[in-house]
Amino acid sequence: MAQLIFTEDRDDPRLDDFRDLSTADRRPDRPGGKGLVIAEGTVVVGRMLESRYPVRALLGVERRFRELDHALARVDVPAYVTSAETMAEVVGFHLNRGVLAVADRPAPPTVAEVVGGADVVAVLEGVGDHENLGALFRNAAALGVGGVLLGPGCSDPLYRRSVRVSMGHVLRVPFTGVDAWPGGLDLLRAQGFRVAALTPRAGSVPLRAVREHAPGRIALLFGAEGPGLTEEALAAADLAVRVPMAPGVDSLNVATAAAVAFYELQAAVAR
Amino acid sequence: MAQLIFTEDRDDPRLDDFRDLSTADRRPDRPGGKGLVIAEGTVVVGRMLESRYPVRALLGVERRFRELDHALARVDVPAYVTSAETMAEVVGFHLNRGVLAVADRPAPPTVAEVVGGADVVAVLEGVGDHENLGALFRNAAALGVGGVLLGPGCSDPLYRRSVRVSMGHVLRVPFTGVDAWPGGLDLLRAQGFRVAALTPRAGSVPLRAVREHAPGRIALLFGAEGPGLTEEALAAADLAVRVPMAPGVDSLNVATAAAVAFYELQAAVAR
Repeated sequence: MAQLIFTEDRDDPRLDDFRDLSTADRRPDRPGGKGLVIAEGTVVVGRMLESRYPVRALLGVERRFRELDHALARVDVPAYVTSAETMAEVVGFHLNRGVLAVADRPAPPTVAEVVGGADVVAVLEGVGDHENLGALFRNAAALGVGGVLLGPGCSDPLYRRSVRVSMGHVLRVPFTGVDAWPGGLDLLRAQGFRVAALTPRAGSVPLRAVREHAPGRIALLFGAEGPGLTEEALAAADLAVRVPMAPGVDSLNVATAAAVAFYELQAAVAR
Repeated sequence: MAQLIFTEDRDDPRLDDFRDLSTADRRPDRPGGKGLVIAEGTVVVGRMLESRYPVRALLGVERRFRELDHALARVDVPAYVTSAETMAEVVGFHLNRGVLAVADRPAPPTVAEVVGGADVVAVLEGVGDHENLGALFRNAAALGVGGVLLGPGCSDPLYRRSVRVSMGHVLRVPFTGVDAWPGGLDLLRAQGFRVAALTPRAGSVPLRAVREHAPGRIALLFGAEGPGLTEEALAAADLAVRVPMAPGVDSLNVATAAAVAFYELQAAVAR
């Protein structure tokens, strides 16, 4: 059961984890210089409390803690209750979501752990935009994708903006980095996955036919909007797949293309 | 052929349409108090030049005009060439896209004109977020949706942010407002459309089965993320359809859900 601790002292050292949120993603004092994981708002804080992430503390206004009553009953962490004004002074700006939680970063899982129980996984190369990354995790969670692997050039999904845009689903969908690239994709093949690269290039299979070519476990490989996948990554894939586009349209946003692909595979299972 | 006019005078009155872009969406001197339509960057400016929107003028750095050479050859409007510095002083901030076009707002088409040649249209209720609206138009263009109808509570798709997020596709996909709500949906039914409301509620048809219930022309009805469609709109639809979600996930972003639905209908045509 979380302990409610009332404080209106903006300099209270127990609130230090919550200070200056606009730079919260960089913490020279933390492992790797990366910040703590920050959850904002009742929905995302609720997901963090249910996740494997070790929550250090919460900060919020009383009303938001009442909304989180049920989730708070199951954790043993300090919950600092304060006014919206004091909260704004601590975090550096007015935060209308009214509640925050901070967690440590656990050790990342192995590739084998991420893909273990999954039929569909996403593999990303060069997805450097925090919003796209967060949106992709949200879509993965919604559409039954079991894990996400991060190749070179990807942002950190645990940045504050990614966590927020993902609606907290980065805390639920397992992910880890792939060290060797694109050679690390062999690890997936060894586990029975076929690697399908999403690319608009000629000769790619229309998405709706993907299951004819990859009926079993499948890893969907996505590149950044604009440059797309590198030649190396395309060459390392088992097949190329495209979302058919209307004439005169170049591309979809990467998270949107991923949602469409995830949907097709989810729907294909049910067909 | 566009006329290239060189100027470095930040007070040049010919540049007045481009001043203070951060408030460009509000122009008390314009019809309805709405601003001109602003296109930013070579891709979106190129789409504006090819659209039905009457372009008034362009402003940009020389390099960007060279990239637009082909499109500029086919229009007869002034193109003001200036330095990045002068451009920043005029628009009020540094604009790294380097080129702008402004157009007047043409008279909106009628509902009959918007849906005329379309097999699939989108109908929106309460989609007030400019980014979601822009993203939805981009997805509509990419996935072959013929038009968009705007019910109550929707933002203006021609706001600068929507135009930008849509990648200029709000200038290509026809749209208009629906006056009577939800009674105006009868206009669609009179043209042979079935109205399918996207909603997670129990009893709705899984998206992949939508064609079993609506094999011909179809209007997809979307509400805002969070509140969803009103009871009135749901009651006025012919059927309810849902994107199946994994357990513990409440929703997709509205533009993403729309992309998935547009894809299903596009794929169904091709199946």
